[in-house]
Amino acid sequence: MKKDIYIVGESLPNMPWEDKPEGFEGPVWRHSQNPIINRNPVKGISRIFNSAVAPYEGKFVGVFRAETINGRPHLHLGWSEDALNWKIEEEPIPFFDEDGKPFQPLYAYDPRLVKIEDTFYIIWCTDFYGASIGLAKTTDFKSFIRLENPFLPFNRNGVLFPRKINGNYVMLSRPSDSGHTPFGDIFLSESPDLKYWGKHRHVMSKGGQGWWQNVKIGGGPAPIETSEGWLLFYHGVTGTCNGFVYSMGAAILDLDEPSKVKYRSRNFILTPEEWYEEKGFVDNVVFPCATLYDAETGRIAIYYGAADTYVSVAYTTVEEIVNYVKETHEEVADDKEVGRL
Amino acid sequence: MKKDIYIVGESLPNMPWEDKPEGFEGPVWRHSQNPIINRNPVKGISRIFNSAVAPYEGKFVGVFRAETINGRPHLHLGWSEDALNWKIEEEPIPFFDEDGKPFQPLYAYDPRLVKIEDTFYIIWCTDFYGASIGLAKTTDFKSFIRLENPFLPFNRNGVLFPRKINGNYVMLSRPSDSGHTPFGDIFLSESPDLKYWGKHRHVMSKGGQGWWQNVKIGGGPAPIETSEGWLLFYHGVTGTCNGFVYSMGAAILDLDEPSKVKYRSRNFILTPEEWYEEKGFVDNVVFPCATLYDAETGRIAIYYGAADTYVSVAYTTVEEIVNYVKETHEEVADDKEVGRL
Repeated sequence: MKKDIYIVGESLPNMPWEDKPEGFEGPVWRHSQNPIINRNPVKGISRIFNSAVAPYEGKFVGVFRAETINGRPHLHLGWSEDALNWKIEEEPIPFFDEDGKPFQPLYAYDPRLVKIEDTFYIIWCTDFYGASIGLAKTTDFKSFIRLENPFLPFNRNGVLFPRKINGNYVMLSRPSDSGHTPFGDIFLSESPDLKYWGKHRHVMSKGGQGWWQNVKIGGGPAPIETSEGWLLFYHGVTGTCNGFVYSMGAAILDLDEPSKVKYRSRNFILTPEEWYEEKGFVDNVVFPCATLYDAETGRIAIYYGAADTYVSVAYTTVEEIVNYVKETHEEVADDKEVGRL
Repeated sequence: MKKDIYIVGESLPNMPWEDKPEGFEGPVWRHSQNPIINRNPVKGISRIFNSAVAPYEGKFVGVFRAETINGRPHLHLGWSEDALNWKIEEEPIPFFDEDGKPFQPLYAYDPRLVKIEDTFYIIWCTDFYGASIGLAKTTDFKSFIRLENPFLPFNRNGVLFPRKINGNYVMLSRPSDSGHTPFGDIFLSESPDLKYWGKHRHVMSKGGQGWWQNVKIGGGPAPIETSEGWLLFYHGVTGTCNGFVYSMGAAILDLDEPSKVKYRSRNFILTPEEWYEEKGFVDNVVFPCATLYDAETGRIAIYYGAADTYVSVAYTTVEEIVNYVKETHEEVADDKEVGRL
């Protein structure tokens, strides 16, 4: 029997899962064995965090933000049978341009990994005379071809939707400045060909009645198609006297016009509380970059970076999170409109 | 007899002109009756500056940055027989979207006006949840249709080239932050249709051995096609203990690959010295937005905003300025490369 609230997608029975702990009140609960990737996980790599995973040929593949022992981040591939125990490659992903020439980013961080039709796309923050969005494609995880950078600098948190909408590819991003940006809303852009981008729209504002997302917000994992709209996990940032604090939020965007926010929780759904979230290279960071989900059961595993040091996992179900977002909805600024001005 | 260095374009014998004053050493000299637009030029408008002009049907048309007496800038149309005495309309330009609905920018400043084939394009800094580039077209200066904003925020100083290059429209811009940006280089983007933009490239860096352009640079008038390449006038900014100082510079970009800088003067070609440049709403600003030129004689009139208060004019010839830029050339960072990283 079909449920009222469901994921539009495929079944993934071998994804990681733990039931909600008895007595736990929040809509999102942590994996009991977090973090799943610890410090110094691979020779020459001191920390892995803010990383993306996907199902691939019966097992799992990941693109990992690997902070080398010289402190500069690059993207490394990893493989897993259970999506919890990862074998990560020692060498960075080798990127080539469309003419087949090596085209390695000077640095690369916060990757997302999204399958559209038969192709996987990696989206990351790249150096383009300042922080901007990098984009590459692969079908076999052996050959990686960089496409044109979608946008001018400065930008971060590029997130592709997992299918075309009204015939166009759609990407979220968070326009920024060239530093530790003290502002930022989520925007959306369309492309007929992944080469030229336009029809830019404002999607969601920082702010709201709470303070946890009052400095900036940025898209997280690729949105999940549900019966209620696109389920978007995102990060929201607040400022303290000692720096930023990154929490996780959730919103539901209109299926056909995803620049319209249908619902948006006024509360964070996960905030730094555990030792691996509170303390690390950057304290107090919970930063979601990927999900695995099973349309059959509605189970969702959220992969998030913790304290710029670890990879962790949290769980929810589509019913639980969608109901929570609807129940705690608040309208912020003109989120509901097609943000064009 | 064709000269060695010449403008590729049309003749414009009725453009304003004054010969270089005897004994004057610089490559650019001021109009003797500057400023040509003074304070309180029109009822309800306190200052006009940073504005663009073009030849149209035997006379001249202009799009003016008009600071209303409530301090917010809008774009007003103006007309002139001699391009020096201007009659400026009291009401802002009425913009409509592509569906015919009114679509007025909340604010609009620093317009450029560029003719491509039979259409005039207005490019300006518009409010798109922060400063970004607005774009509109007209063929009759009665109906003005806004096109999609080319880029995500934050951006300023959008400058269209006056013809397609390798089949695409080409626009310069200066990615920025949401405030009084303390950094900025010139980038270039291409579009097949003025709707979707991509193939973003870095063109020119701030900096160089001099200090006049060490904070940021931004494109000025639409580049002029010459035998040596695209002649680009631009503004360069330095910082002092009391604020920014805006001077004018010049560069020559490769005709077929305009993201490559062929030559670039190490010196400013005009800097605030006269009373109307030194003192006003914003002191010490020389900000070029438009040119008129005559391909027959090689004469160029540069329209520039002075101290965010006045419109002024300066003159040069294509031979004089191109030779000067070549003689005072310096290579900055990787200006010479196709800036892709």
